[in-house]
Parts: sequence; C-alpha cells; structure tokens
Amino acid sequence: MQTMRANIFCGVNDIRIEEVPRPRAGVGEAVIKITLTTICGTDLHILRGEYPVKPGLIIGHEPVGIISELGPGVTGYEIGDRVVVGAITPCGQCRGCLSGHLSQCGHGDGYDAIGGWRFGNTINGSQAEYLLVPYAQANLTKIPDGVSDSQVVLLADIASTGFSGAESGGVKIGDAVVVFAQGPIGLCATAGARLMGAAFVIGIDGDDHRLEMSRQMGADIALDYRSQDVVAEVKRLTGGGADVAIEALGTQQTFESALRCLRPGGTLSSLGVYSGKLSVPDDAFAAGLGDHRIITTLCPGGKERMRRLIEIVRTGRVDLTPLLTHSFSLDNIGEAYDLFGSRSDRVLKVAIRP
Amino acid sequence: MQTMRANIFCGVNDIRIEEVPRPRAGVGEAVIKITLTTICGTDLHILRGEYPVKPGLIIGHEPVGIISELGPGVTGYEIGDRVVVGAITPCGQCRGCLSGHLSQCGHGDGYDAIGGWRFGNTINGSQAEYLLVPYAQANLTKIPDGVSDSQVVLLADIASTGFSGAESGGVKIGDAVVVFAQGPIGLCATAGARLMGAAFVIGIDGDDHRLEMSRQMGADIALDYRSQDVVAEVKRLTGGGADVAIEALGTQQTFESALRCLRPGGTLSSLGVYSGKLSVPDDAFAAGLGDHRIITTLCPGGKERMRRLIEIVRTGRVDLTPLLTHSFSLDNIGEAYDLFGSRSDRVLKVAIRP
Amino acid sequence: MQTMRANIFCGVNDIRIEEVPRPRAGVGEAVIKITLTTICGTDLHILRGEYPVKPGLIIGHEPVGIISELGPGVTGYEIGDRVVVGAITPCGQCRGCLSGHLSQCGHGDGYDAIGGWRFGNTINGSQAEYLLVPYAQANLTKIPDGVSDSQVVLLADIASTGFSGAESGGVKIGDAVVVFAQGPIGLCATAGARLMGAAFVIGIDGDDHRLEMSRQMGADIALDYRSQDVVAEVKRLTGGGADVAIEALGTQQTFESALRCLRPGGTLSSLGVYSGKLSVPDDAFAAGLGDHRIITTLCPGGKERMRRLIEIVRTGRVDLTPLLTHSFSLDNIGEAYDLFGSRSDRVLKVAIRP
Amino acid sequence: MQTMRANIFCGVNDIRIEEVPRPRAGVGEAVIKITLTTICGTDLHILRGEYPVKPGLIIGHEPVGIISELGPGVTGYEIGDRVVVGAITPCGQCRGCLSGHLSQCGHGDGYDAIGGWRFGNTINGSQAEYLLVPYAQANLTKIPDGVSDSQVVLLADIASTGFSGAESGGVKIGDAVVVFAQGPIGLCATAGARLMGAAFVIGIDGDDHRLEMSRQMGADIALDYRSQDVVAEVKRLTGGGADVAIEALGTQQTFESALRCLRPGGTLSSLGVYSGKLSVPDDAFAAGLGDHRIITTLCPGGKERMRRLIEIVRTGRVDLTPLLTHSFSLDNIGEAYDLFGSRSDRVLKVAIRP
Repeated sequence: MQTMRANIFCGVNDIRIEEVPRPRAGVGEAVIKITLTTICGTDLHILRGEYPVKPGLIIGHEPVGIISELGPGVTGYEIGDRVVVGAITPCGQCRGCLSGHLSQCGHGDGYDAIGGWRFGNTINGSQAEYLLVPYAQANLTKIPDGVSDSQVVLLADIASTGFSGAESGGVKIGDAVVVFAQGPIGLCATAGARLMGAAFVIGIDGDDHRLEMSRQMGADIALDYRSQDVVAEVKRLTGGGADVAIEALGTQQTFESALRCLRPGGTLSSLGVYSGKLSVPDDAFAAGLGDHRIITTLCPGGKERMRRLIEIVRTGRVDLTPLLTHSFSLDNIGEAYDLFGSRSDRVLKVAIRP
Repeated sequence: MQTMRANIFCGVNDIRIEEVPRPRAGVGEAVIKITLTTICGTDLHILRGEYPVKPGLIIGHEPVGIISELGPGVTGYEIGDRVVVGAITPCGQCRGCLSGHLSQCGHGDGYDAIGGWRFGNTINGSQAEYLLVPYAQANLTKIPDGVSDSQVVLLADIASTGFSGAESGGVKIGDAVVVFAQGPIGLCATAGARLMGAAFVIGIDGDDHRLEMSRQMGADIALDYRSQDVVAEVKRLTGGGADVAIEALGTQQTFESALRCLRPGGTLSSLGVYSGKLSVPDDAFAAGLGDHRIITTLCPGGKERMRRLIEIVRTGRVDLTPLLTHSFSLDNIGEAYDLFGSRSDRVLKVAIRP
Repeated sequence: MQTMRANIFCGVNDIRIEEVPRPRAGVGEAVIKITLTTICGTDLHILRGEYPVKPGLIIGHEPVGIISELGPGVTGYEIGDRVVVGAITPCGQCRGCLSGHLSQCGHGDGYDAIGGWRFGNTINGSQAEYLLVPYAQANLTKIPDGVSDSQVVLLADIASTGFSGAESGGVKIGDAVVVFAQGPIGLCATAGARLMGAAFVIGIDGDDHRLEMSRQMGADIALDYRSQDVVAEVKRLTGGGADVAIEALGTQQTFESALRCLRPGGTLSSLGVYSGKLSVPDDAFAAGLGDHRIITTLCPGGKERMRRLIEIVRTGRVDLTPLLTHSFSLDNIGEAYDLFGSRSDRVLKVAIRP
Repeated sequence: MQTMRANIFCGVNDIRIEEVPRPRAGVGEAVIKITLTTICGTDLHILRGEYPVKPGLIIGHEPVGIISELGPGVTGYEIGDRVVVGAITPCGQCRGCLSGHLSQCGHGDGYDAIGGWRFGNTINGSQAEYLLVPYAQANLTKIPDGVSDSQVVLLADIASTGFSGAESGGVKIGDAVVVFAQGPIGLCATAGARLMGAAFVIGIDGDDHRLEMSRQMGADIALDYRSQDVVAEVKRLTGGGADVAIEALGTQQTFESALRCLRPGGTLSSLGVYSGKLSVPDDAFAAGLGDHRIITTLCPGGKERMRRLIEIVRTGRVDLTPLLTHSFSLDNIGEAYDLFGSRSDRVLKVAIRP
C-alpha cells in the first residue's frame, strides 16, 4: 500500500505529521496530489478542542492540487489537471443540493445540517500529500493557465465565505455596508461588499494592521472599536444606519453591534460560528417590528462557485495574495499553527506546501 | 367646533369614551366617518401599560368607514366613498417608502423604525366616530359593491400581518409550514401559507377552540403543545424540519421552538412583538452555519396592499368573517375590551360599531 | 439478452411497438419497470416530424414504475421501490445544475440548451416496459403509500411545467392572472396560479370542454376567444391589465395576446414551444419602456421537484386525475396517439399501461 | 407675471428659445432654478418627430438646480437647497408606485405605462431657467457639499438607466456580461455591470472612440461589430454564452444579437426604445425552452434612487464627468442639438447651463 504524510488530529492540542495510507478513488471520486493548502480559523478551533472531530482525522479544507486518480463515473477530467476544490463538497443530487442549499448537502438523500462541509470535519482533509475528493464531478474545478495556485487557494473557503456575506446580505448599488471583524473572512466580506456595488463600506476591528488591510481590501473607512463607540459612529456616517451589516467573527458583541447598526429594514448577514446562547435585545431589532432580516450562511461550494470566483481573480477584480502572508512546508505545519494561532507577525493566512 | 365620541387612553387600565373635537382634513389628508373597527391585541398591551402611548390618545388602528372630508391635494375620491384604511399608513414619498419598506415610513424624509404605524400609536386612532387619515392619497382604498364592511375590517391589520408571515417566509409550492400560535394573526398566517401553495401546514396552539379554528383556516393538522413535544412532532411529520416556521405570538418559547422546527436552510418568519431579550441557542440554528434566515415583518399597509387583500376576500379565497365572533357599540367598548382580554366565550375578534 | 416491448419512432407518422433489448444500469443509473406512462403533445410533434428525433428512438417522457435494477453508486433505494421520474433528468453536477438551471443540464460539464430533457429526445423514453434512468441518484422519487400511480404520472411533465408558469411569473397574493390555452399544461398553469395565491384567474380557450375544465381547475372565469376580444375583456376585468399572463400553447397569437393583456410592469410567463419567428409589436410592450418581463421556462425536474409535487397531490391541494380521461395498453398505443391527436371524445391525457 | 427663457418644441425639427411664464408651485410641488441640464437621445427623437410630444412643450428631463419655491405640503427642504431631480418623477402614492413600479406611475391612482416620465414629455421640462417639479416630496434630492453639479447631472437619466440594465439583469459576482452599444447609456450599463461584480464585461460598438470609452468605463474587452462576428466572439470568450446581455440602443440587430449571446438560462436586459416590430427567431431563444428572461426597464427615479446614485459618485465608485464632453449656454442650445445629433467631435453628453 502506498503511503503519504498528513497532518493528523490526535487529540486536543495534539496534531502530528504522520505517515498514513494514501487514498484511492472509488465510484464518483477522485484523488488529488495537494500542491497548496492553508490553515483556517476553524482548524484552530479543532486543535483547541472547541469544535469536536474524531481523533485520527486529517484536518484542513482548502485544497489546490493535481488530479492523480479518477474513479468510475467521473468524466471530462484528465490525470494531471490542476484543480481547486471548495471547502464545501456538495453531491448535487440530494434534496438539499437540488433545492439550492448546497452547503446543507444530504449526501444523495435529504438535507443534513452543515452536511456540505466534510473535509477535515467528517472525512479526511487537505493538510496532506493526497486528498480523496467525494462527488468529484461536482467539485473539481480546473484552474486556467495564467492563474497561480496562490491566487486561488483562498477561494476554497475564506473568499467564498466572505463574498457570501455580501451576497446573502443582498448588497445593492448604493448601499452602506458595515463589516464587523477584519480577519481573513471579514476582509473578504469587505471586498465582497465593494464588489457588489456598495457605495460606502465600513470595516470594524481592533487591530491596527487589520484596519489598514481593511482599507486596502476596499473599506472607505476603518473604525477601531478600542477607541470609539462604533455603533454610534456607523449610524452617524450612514445617516441612520447601514443597509447591510456583516458579522464575521461569531461573538455576542459583534452580532449585537451589527444588529444595532442596521437601519429599519436592514439585513444582518452572519458568517461567524457561534457557541452558547446568542442574545437579541428587543431594542436592537425594534421588538421584532423593524422588518429586519438575519441571514446565516455557510461557505458556498461546488465547482461552479469555484469557477466564478476564479474568474474574479483572473480578471483582477480582487487580489487575495496579500492575505497569504507566510509560507511553510507540510512538515513544519506545527510552527504554522503556532504563528497563525498567536496572530503575531501580522499573519493573516499561511501557505502550506506538501 | 363639531365634536365626536371616541375611546381615549387616559392611563394604565383606564380607557374612557369621551366627547372630543372632530378632526378636520389638512393638505393631503382625509377624514372618514367610522362604520366598523375592532380591537387588536396591541390595544390590550396599550391598555395594560405594556406598550406606552401618550395619555389622551384615541386608540385603535383598523378602520372601515365613509369619506366625510378630503383635504387639498387628494384626488380621485368622493365624499361618501366607502373605504378601508390599513393599520399602517405610509407616506409613499420618504426614503423608507421609496425603498419598498412602507412600514418603516419616515414621513416624507428618511426611515423611521415602525414609523408606518401611526393610528392609535402616535396619532389618533379608529375607535371613534371620525378618523383623520394622513397621506390619504396613499391610504384610502375603496371597497367594491358586494363586499361588506365585515369582510374587509380584518384586512387592515391581522390578515395583512398574518399573510405577510407566509410572504416574508417565501413560502413556495410544496413547502411544509408550521405556524406557532393560532390567535387571530396566527390563523391568518395559516390561511396565508395555504394561499401561497404550502403542501402541508401545521398549526400549533394550546387552546381547543383555536386548534379547531386552525384546521378551519387551512391547517392540515393542528398540534396541541400541552399534550406533546411539538418540535419533535413537526420534525417527524415533515421528514426533517419545516421549510418555513411562522412565529405569531412574541415569546421566547414560540420563537425558539419555531427555530428548532426548521430544516437546514429554512426560514423563520417572525410576526410577534418581543419584549426583553430573545435568546438564540447555538444548537437551535446550527451555530450560525445552517443557512437559516430569520425575517421580521411589520404589517404591510398602503392602498395597493388593501386593494389586493380585498380581491382575496371578494373572490372567496379566504373568508375572515368567522373570526369576527362578537359585536359591540362604541359606547360599550369597555365590555368589548374585557371580553377580548379575557379570551373567554371563544372570542377571536370583536366588531366595534360607532 | 432480455427483451421488452417498446414504442419506437421509426420515421414521420410511423411509430411501432417492437421487441427491443431491455436496458441495463451502468454507474449511477437505474432501470425501472414502467407501470404507467402517458403521451405528451411533444410526442405528437415528434410523430408528425415537427420536432426531430433520431429514428429508432423509444419515445415518451412521463414515467411511473418499479425499480428493477440499480447501478453502482446509487444509494438509498431498493429494488421494488415504486417511483416517479421527472421528464427532465438533471445530473446535479454540471455548471447548469449547480447554478440552479436544472433543465439546462450540461451532463456533468457546462450548460446545454434544453439539455435536461433527454427521455424520448436524446435517449430512450418511457413508452416501453423498461426505462433506463440516467443520474438516478438525482431523479428517482419514491411514491408514498396511499398515493396512486394515476395521481402522480402527470407530475412528471405537465403539472411541473404548468405550475412553473405561475412560479416563473412570480404570482403573488392578490394577483390577477390570465392563462392562454387550456390544454393539459394550461389547465395546470391555471391550477398553479390559484395555488400561489392569485386572487383572480382567467382561463382562455376556444373549446367548450376545456373552458369548463378551466373553471374546474381553478379559473374564476373562462373566456372563449371565438366569441369575444379577450385582450379587451381581460383589461376590463382586471382594471387595466393582468399582473401575470401565462402562455401555454406556443403560437404568435397567444404570445402576442398575452403580452397585450399585461399591466405596466407585468410578467409574461411563457411555456409554449415556438417555431419560426415570434413578432413583438412595439405597442404591445410600451416600446421597451413598460418594465415588462418575458420569462421562458422548461419543465423543472429532479427528485426534489417531484417530491414537492407529490406532496401537493398527497394533501389534496390539486387533483390531476380528472385530466387522465382515457386508458390504453402499451400495445394499443397507436390508437391512443390517434385519439390524443384528434382531440376528440373530450380527451385531455391518456394513461398508457405496459 | 414673471417670465423665463426656455427651449420650446414648436414642431418637427423646430425648437426655439422663447420667453415664457415662469412656473409657480402648487400643492405638493416645487420650482427649481436650473443650474445645469443636458440633452438626451430621446430629445433628439422628439426634435425629429420620432417621438410625439405636444408643440409648445419645454423639453429636457435631466435637471440640477436650486430650490426657488416650495408649495404647500412639501416639508424638510429650504429655498436655496441645491438639488437633483430624476428624469422619472413618481408620485409614490399610486398603485404603480406602491407596488414598486415607480416608472409606471399612475399619478395618485392606478398604473400608467411610462407614466413616471413626465418632464419634457407630458409636462414642461428642464431646458429652461426654471422647472416645476411635481410630487416634490418624492423627487427633490439634496446634493451634499463637495459634490458638484457636473458629477450628478447624468444621474438623472443615463446613469440611472444604464445601471438599471445591470440591476434588472440580476448581475451576480462572477458573471460574464455583454453590453450592446456604447453610447452614454451603454457606457453606464458597462460601468453598472462592473459595479455589481461581473467578472468579465464585454462592450460592443462600431465607433472607435466609444470602444475606447467602453474600456475606460469598465469593459475588460471592447468588440467592434464592423470587423468581426460579435456573437460568435462573445460565445467564445465566455465559454458558451454570457450570463447577462444588456441592450442599450433599441434596434432589431442589437436585440437579436444580445439574445443570441446568452447562455441557456441567461437574461437579456433591455434598455432601448423600440419602434415597429421586434422579431424573435426561435433558434435565438431555444424555441422558448431555454429558461431565458427578457426584462425591459425604464429609468428608475425618485429621490431615494438619486440619493443612492449620488453616494456612488461621492465615494468615487464611478466618475461620470468624462461623459460630459461639451458645454453650452441655454441660449446656444440649438448648436448643442446639432453637435449632439451629428455625433461629431467625440461628443457624448453636452452640459447646458441657463
């Protein structure tokens, strides 16, 4: 049996590079040789035991690579094709997918909450030399010549998620949009709001570097919550409230502030992962009479989503490479986790190359 | 000066029929002679001091009557026209209205949270012999011959609100819809879900008469929360969760249960008026990753809304008259409040005739 | 090799029941034993040479049957399951399907115009003892106990198509809708408009029986184009024009009349199959300035669509069995074509039972 | 009586600057002193007798000015406020407006096809020293300090119309969009497609200067129909067809080519004004089975629309001043018409200053 090196979750605060069997492609599946992947904030939650996965699992869900094996029933691809695969791998054939809820994929049958997220969650992930791709026909996206791995690796999760914050918010030409938290996903939400025609985009964070990046990614103004009442300032700047507020962190404070920033009839587009109980004070949403909308979105996936996002980077609409601040080999992924977890050295995202 | 009799809010638990000046129509306004009105649950909240309005205000917001005076600038109507006016009276000319958020009307200028609701809230209401209608051009809807006052009085608020629960939920052909609470608004939400093509409608309440009415208004099944775990039963009946859950009461329990009933990607359409803090447990909405939507809606108003709803009753799609269970004169409105507040004698809505 | 009897298109005006090889299921496919199918207007076009298909093809695209074989990769079904399959069989995994355009399925890759319609068009169809179902995971829909074959066979095409006329038209609560032509699809469009909350539905035809059926399927009024100017009458009845006009025939006259019936801002939802050049007179659509929308729709398919439509018939929202006016064995399908083509004996749809 | 100078349509090919009575503001109206206006292609149609208006009418519909008089019932404005008014002046209070079809305004009552366009069409227009603004409360938009008249005058019509081409087309992140004709409206449609997140925008024209401007306003590529088969080239560049095709001229050829450029399921967003009969060949839209949408849009207006567009220019998202290529006094407007009509000297739009 052929083996490969992979980053295994062995238990809380215990990940290890180990030699494990290399996957083989079954019906409808493919195997890709990973050339570039990265670490997501969710991987940190897994490492710290805040999001439970089974010990023994290979983690990571942002894969770029080369097709090395195609299972029966997968057509239109060749061994050697360079591809990106979304973090979410819908089957395309269940009740969820056929209803357009690709991220709530039921794997051929009904719906399954968060069911579209499988890599590094319920099946082996991308922090490895090889990756088994389920429902390959729906999930392998060829990368055009002239577009680099580095340009597309962040499309798999953070750009798809961040842009979806603007999309689910229904950003329209002329909107005022505020984005809470300017980490990698929040920065992509900022870029997404700009991309969809928002006339005025406000980024909120409490880190100088991220506030600077916020302006670079498209914010007209970046507000530091450490030094001012950002809700009041957003209301002042927008003449009464934002049309859309995007939450990109997953805390009570960012959620509640986002809600308080909205104009009547505004939309809170929520991207964060919450734990415990969120509280919704009645004065923050007009006692339920303000025609507000709260929309949650899990990263959109599937090959058509990836194709569209590749087009966005190919034509230069958005450049994500400034977010890839550091690079490590797979064998040194432990250091990469330490750096990424510490948020030191202005790290935003790290490139991992097997 | 001419006077009229009117139901005045004088303080907590103190309403009185008094003789007050009859209103006159200014620019863009009209006065109607009320022929039929009713009492809303919100009026009870006002009476009990749970929703604050200024002492001295005439309350009530569901008016049917005859035009008795037209101010300058109001065209296309005649003195004597029989009309219904929605509980919400948008100006049509502010930022809110021009954006399609008629219920968040800014009165000629920007937005104003809940600003479209003025009758019996910020200006005198309909429990009186005469009513001053602001923005009359946008709010007077003629009632066709052959359609009675009783058929249309509930369109002003509860039918418009209840139907909007289904509309904001985006009910589609084949959906499974659950409606929490089967009071007058919940019953109209049930009728609305049916009207929009839901294949399976479940009504939830804990009152035998209302459960019976639920089936009469269109529920395929009515569940009694006193005798069973309704969330589990909804999930079982719908094969995994409802497409849309409508909340029509305004409590933590109904809100949370509605959320728990949803399938991944489902929509909670909220009609209730909440007080204090709503709590959203992370397990009830997949930690923010379930592609859920929470939409709040305030009663849609304006003359085009009323025209459309009149069409619905004119062609027999929905019959609201069974909800008008009792009738009182304006002078006896105190008794009507007592009955309505006690929920005794199978009361659903009371007709008030000046 | 096992054989079966099937209805073969041999050339213009030449169809024959022949003994042909029975299909076998490959990867992702299934074979069903047909228990009930029918003849579509499109089959008549094929027979008459008006829509070209390859000689030797088994025609028919409305299958109900029993699963007799499941290929590799198809899960969650059992041999013997009773199923309906839509006329349109999307793969769920191409660019078209992943964008929500299931009827323009690209078969694993891009888009393909009308590509979702394969049965009896580009692959063998359902007028046979057995049928090979492509992309079985996305297209087999189990029929619940208590729901008969006759209740669901018309969901495969005409109900799905007819209802989509109302759906693509965006019918809303209170709309006035006119449906041009009251053949099987038009009758289902009438039912669909009613199902979605139209307050006033007008059916148009020139056949007494179909006008009567129009009222039975939900029209408030049925207009005979032989005896009146239906455009003028629709404008009169609707007070200026319909919100939505559904075209269900495919001729210049019905298309143009539908357009002329619209109010400013109205939607023409087109279901017909056109040949030659449609003409759009500038006065019929306000020279392009009337905010009109013209939407064409090909029958929605896939197992989730079928599941939803089954729910509609299961709960009694719509009863399609009155449309199944006649019944024939597969061996007598020639007679069935003659009857169906002649439109005699009040025929609407014929049941074909192998 | 006070008088003013104004550009009067006296008959075909006969416009004259004359001294006429200055308007006075009635109930709900305002008078503005014009500081900047322009000439629209529609004005040329009027001059040439191709679009009929009554002799004696002041033409022009793109006004920027200073409020000089406010009628009864208009609140929140001051004499001296600098304002822009859209070419379309909805009342906000009719059936059309309350349904969101502001351009099909029925003036207080029902719908009226193209009824929102009144200036220089059914009432006096802006090529004058003073302009009477109907429904002033819904139509006066204050211009913020720091934003010049020249930056906003083109918002009144061509930018609002051009952007609406992208909006009605439903342009989404990652779309490929083609725009037929790169005159002032087409150029704004190009900018609008870019603004909404199109990944790839193709401009089509046959004039070198306009092709150059197309790239400047946001096209990734500009194709010259004089030198190539643009439909074939669009299909090649987009890998099968554009998601959205915008028609910005109003001819059979541009309409038909736009339709032929679409992918299955694509949208033709039509802005042009058509005369005679448009022809829709069945092969250009898959015989009605391609899930195509054809949407026509008349320039959106009202003060909220103008406010949003001002935000777009205020924050630098789009700069329209390069389109204002020439400047004339009102007294020399005849020369301006000659230049604009001749399309010589690279003219795109002309500034007219009373």
